[in-house]
Amino acid sequence: MIPPDHPRYHSLVTRERLAKCMLQGIVSPEGLTAHGRGEAFDYFLGERTTDSALLAEKIAAALLLSAASPVISVNGNTAALAAGGIAELQRACGARVEVNLFHRTEERVRQIEDMLRRAGADVLSGPAERLLPLSHDRAWCRRDGMFSADVILVPLEDGDRCEALVGMGKSVIAIDLNPLSRTSRKATLTIVDELTRALPSITRACGILSEDERRSLLAGLDNHYLLSEAIREMTTRLSHALD
Amino acid sequence: MIPPDHPRYHSLVTRERLAKCMLQGIVSPEGLTAHGRGEAFDYFLGERTTDSALLAEKIAAALLLSAASPVISVNGNTAALAAGGIAELQRACGARVEVNLFHRTEERVRQIEDMLRRAGADVLSGPAERLLPLSHDRAWCRRDGMFSADVILVPLEDGDRCEALVGMGKSVIAIDLNPLSRTSRKATLTIVDELTRALPSITRACGILSEDERRSLLAGLDNHYLLSEAIREMTTRLSHALD
Repeated sequence: MIPPDHPRYHSLVTRERLAKCMLQGIVSPEGLTAHGRGEAFDYFLGERTTDSALLAEKIAAALLLSAASPVISVNGNTAALAAGGIAELQRACGARVEVNLFHRTEERVRQIEDMLRRAGADVLSGPAERLLPLSHDRAWCRRDGMFSADVILVPLEDGDRCEALVGMGKSVIAIDLNPLSRTSRKATLTIVDELTRALPSITRACGILSEDERRSLLAGLDNHYLLSEAIREMTTRLSHALD
Repeated sequence: MIPPDHPRYHSLVTRERLAKCMLQGIVSPEGLTAHGRGEAFDYFLGERTTDSALLAEKIAAALLLSAASPVISVNGNTAALAAGGIAELQRACGARVEVNLFHRTEERVRQIEDMLRRAGADVLSGPAERLLPLSHDRAWCRRDGMFSADVILVPLEDGDRCEALVGMGKSVIAIDLNPLSRTSRKATLTIVDELTRALPSITRACGILSEDERRSLLAGLDNHYLLSEAIREMTTRLSHALD
């Protein structure tokens, strides 16, 4: 039991939730280490949504709302951290929700789908096929999901799949706290923000953007600028950390 | 089986060892997350002992050698990563070794004590009491261990306990890859270096420092400078990352 007066309460509770989900089989052991790496980058950001991240979240909303077949791809960590946030974003933008796992087993897929449904999401079901140009289990997706999507939101994705999806001509929106990762560099749009801050922010933007604002945001999309700004925020914060 | 010529051999073997220790109950699932966080910070340091970290390690040796009752506090991650390194440092500086856990169970304490003994450490045993001014299980320690120590080395410690120990008038040496953590800021001396590099480095210094050198190192202890230098190393690497 973590005492609520602990200064790192939120962070500790999150870790505890991920640990519990690992014991249930929803999160992989590798997912725990990956989460820890994300935490370190979030320290550098000051654990807040920066101006450039907020801009990226608005552009993400514009991309999702303008898409013909948007898909939100969910893995174990995403479901464990933000199943409710995924359901709300789905309601706001009308995207399909599809479970795709790096460490894939049918049992894990089913568990994560159940978790998302309990949180109110409408989850794509039916048989998956090996449709992506990737070796092994990461090739799996559904024909009416990721495979036919034009815009895909991939929170916490690995670099290989991000690159493969971009190579298939899709617009890929990544949520990744590491602005130096391959995912961040390969994505069409990278949101350098923590998942449980990023999702509600995209959802809010979906509810308020006018069609003119969307067009203007899409015209201004410059991912290199967004990544540079994230790195600049981190270095600025770090260099003043002890002032 | 990880091939020894893999460029990430050391890092992958370390993760594998931690995962194995988690299955045995020695490392907590939260310990895996904490390790991932350390990995990200170490990446920014260039996975090497910086000049300022080496200086901190020499000062740590001077503090331990000059102490009346030095104690090394060991948790699950520390034992899993460096039980042998703890035993060697104990031989070099004569400190007591005491197991203190954030996620405390008697069974885990016993397992970790056994692991340390197998690695050659002389581990403090006997009953623990709630002696530290903390609200949860971290209040536990031994009267002839942490409680009566004047200098305590806490590798991978949490901020609450670090602060409580400093508040009790003790000199606290932290090993923490995050120069912004509360532990790093509250400690008397912070070594911003990876555990398995830091421990042998302190042990080496114990073997070669003259009494004059020790005095001079202690007189020059400036933790703010050491943290600034660690941050400067990280910002320099980050700011050139997109070049």
